[in-house]
Amino acid sequence: MITVLTGGTGGAKFVDGLRHIVPAEELTIVVNTGDDLRWWGLYVSPDIDSIAYMLAGKLSQERGWGVKGDTFFCLNAMAQMGQPTWFQTGDRDLATHVFRTKLLADGKTLSAATAEIAATLGIKTRILPMSDSRVETRVLTPAGDLSFEEYFVQRWYQDPVELVRFAGAAEAQPAPGVIEAIRSADLVLLAPSNPVTSIGPILAVPGIRKALRETSARIAAVSPIVGGTAVTGPAGTLMAAQGFAVSIAGVADFYGDFLDLLVVDSQDAPAAHALRNEALRNQALRKTGMRVHCTPTIMRKAEDRIALAKSVLDAARQPPTAPAAEERA
Amino acid sequence: MITVLTGGTGGAKFVDGLRHIVPAEELTIVVNTGDDLRWWGLYVSPDIDSIAYMLAGKLSQERGWGVKGDTFFCLNAMAQMGQPTWFQTGDRDLATHVFRTKLLADGKTLSAATAEIAATLGIKTRILPMSDSRVETRVLTPAGDLSFEEYFVQRWYQDPVELVRFAGAAEAQPAPGVIEAIRSADLVLLAPSNPVTSIGPILAVPGIRKALRETSARIAAVSPIVGGTAVTGPAGTLMAAQGFAVSIAGVADFYGDFLDLLVVDSQDAPAAHALRNEALRNQALRKTGMRVHCTPTIMRKAEDRIALAKSVLDAARQPPTAPAAEERA
Repeated sequence: MITVLTGGTGGAKFVDGLRHIVPAEELTIVVNTGDDLRWWGLYVSPDIDSIAYMLAGKLSQERGWGVKGDTFFCLNAMAQMGQPTWFQTGDRDLATHVFRTKLLADGKTLSAATAEIAATLGIKTRILPMSDSRVETRVLTPAGDLSFEEYFVQRWYQDPVELVRFAGAAEAQPAPGVIEAIRSADLVLLAPSNPVTSIGPILAVPGIRKALRETSARIAAVSPIVGGTAVTGPAGTLMAAQGFAVSIAGVADFYGDFLDLLVVDSQDAPAAHALRNEALRNQALRKTGMRVHCTPTIMRKAEDRIALAKSVLDAARQPPTAPAAEERA
Repeated sequence: MITVLTGGTGGAKFVDGLRHIVPAEELTIVVNTGDDLRWWGLYVSPDIDSIAYMLAGKLSQERGWGVKGDTFFCLNAMAQMGQPTWFQTGDRDLATHVFRTKLLADGKTLSAATAEIAATLGIKTRILPMSDSRVETRVLTPAGDLSFEEYFVQRWYQDPVELVRFAGAAEAQPAPGVIEAIRSADLVLLAPSNPVTSIGPILAVPGIRKALRETSARIAAVSPIVGGTAVTGPAGTLMAAQGFAVSIAGVADFYGDFLDLLVVDSQDAPAAHALRNEALRNQALRKTGMRVHCTPTIMRKAEDRIALAKSVLDAARQPPTAPAAEERA
C-alpha cells in the first residue's frame, strides 16, 4: 500500500506516473486543501480537482488544471455580469464545483463529497482531503494578506512574501483515514509539490507530522527544487521566505524529521553527494539516516512521469543499508 | 406607469411586445416565483429569468426559455456524474443561477438579487419578484405532491391534477414595491399567462389581490385560453382542476373581482358577446362592469407581440363608457 501526499500541478503529474504502474486500489492520495476557495459562492478545491481529473484521465494537459477541451461560456457570461473571472472555471469543470457545493450544503463532509465525486468519475484510487476542516493558506505580502489563489493565480506570485500561515490549522483534524493511511502504508511518497504551500498545509494539520515520524512505512520525497530553483511556480520564493535554503538541502531540512529517502534530479548529483555526507554526520536527521537518490525528475512527457514513478519506487524498495544502489543512480 | 403581472413563456412574449412600445422606465414587471426551485443546489427562478433574458434581448426564441445560442457542456458533465438533467440549464444561463445563489447566500433578498442581476444585464425596466418569501406552487397528482417544475418540465404535465396549492403563501408578504406598483399604476396588465400557476401564485400572496381590488388603475388581462383551450401548456387542465371553466368565461371568473377589461382572441368573438351580456347582468362582477375586447392574441411572430401590446393598451385607454369602441374590435 502506497500513500502519497500531494498538491499542485507537479503533484498531479507525479500521481499520473504512479497510476500507470501501481494498481488503483493500492494507492491513497492525501491532498492539500489549503488552496480551497469560495469562487462565485461555489466551493472549489483546486488540488483535489487536479488529482481527480488526472486519475479520471480528464485533466487538461496543456493547462495542467481543469478539464481537457473545456469551454468557458459560463465564465464569459459571468464577465458580462461584472463578476470576477481571474480564477478560470470551464463549463465542464463547473459541474464538479456545483456538485461539491451541493453535497457540502447537504451536510456532507469534504471527504464524503470527494469520495462521491471520485466515484462518479469512475476513480478507484482513494482520494482523501488532508482535513475536513477549513485550513486556509494565507500569504502575507506588502499588498495584503492574500489567499493562496489570490497570490498565485490572481497576482501571478509576483508579490514579495513576508509570511505564509495556515489559518485554522491548529483547530483542524486530519480527515478520516489520513492518519491510518500513513501509519498502515508500506511506503509514503511526498510528491514534487511546493513544500511550503502544497505539502506544508498537510504537515500543519495536527497529528499528520507525528504520524509520519512514527510510521513504519518508508517515506520518500521527490524534490521540487532542481539546480537551486523551483521546477515551476513559487516554491523557491516561498521556501526562502520560510527560512529554508532553495536547494535540495532545503527540501531535506523541510522533511528531515521523518524522511528516509530524498529523490533529486540527476543534475543535482554533486549537491546530493554533499547531502549524503551531511546526513551521515547529522544526528538531527532520522536515526536510519536519510538516503538521497538521483534520477531525472523533470516530467515533460508522459514517459518521464512513469520513469520517475518507477525510479522512486525502486529506490524506496532498496534496503536502507545498500548505499551502493544509490551510487548507481 | 404600467404594472404587469406575469409568469411563464406567454407572459415573456407579451412583455416583449410591450417593451417595444412602452419606455423601459414606465414598466414594472411583477413576476411569479412559485416555480422557483433549487437545482443542483442553485436557486433558479425560471419566470424571473425568462423576463430578464427577454428584456435583455438574450432569451432563446426557439426554446422560449434560457439564453439564446446557449451550450450545455456543464449539463453534460453533470449527466456524466449521474446528476439529474431534466431541468436544462445552459452554460450561459448557469451564470445567472450561480450569481443569484451567491447573492442570496450573502444575505440579499430575492428582490435585491433580481435588481442586481437586471442591472448587470443592462435592464432599465423594474423587475419585482412577487415576494421575497418562498412561495412554492405544489401540484398534487396521483404520482405524488410535485413541485411545479417536476409536474411541468420533468413529467411533461401528463399527470391528472387533483389540487394546486401555494405552499408558504399564507405567511408570505409581497416583495417591496409590489403593492405600490399596483396602487400607483395607471394601468395594470395581466399577461396571457397560466391563471392558476403563473398569475395564481401572485394573487395568493396576501395583500396583492386586495391591492388589485382597490387600485384606481385600470386592470386588463389577456386570456391565455383561446377557443376553449390553452394556447400552450397546462392552463386548461389546471383551470378545470381548480373548478373553473376552460373558456374566456372561466378566465373572467378567475379575475372577476378586480378586472376592468378582458382581452380575448378574435376567434372567441361569439363567447365574448355572451360574456358582455353576462357582465351587464352580473353584479358580482366589478361595479364598473367588465369590458371584453377582441383582438388577435396568438403571438407567432415579433410583430404579433407588438400588435397585441398596442391593441391591449388602446383598449385599456378607452373610456369605460364607450361600448362602441369595443364593438369595433
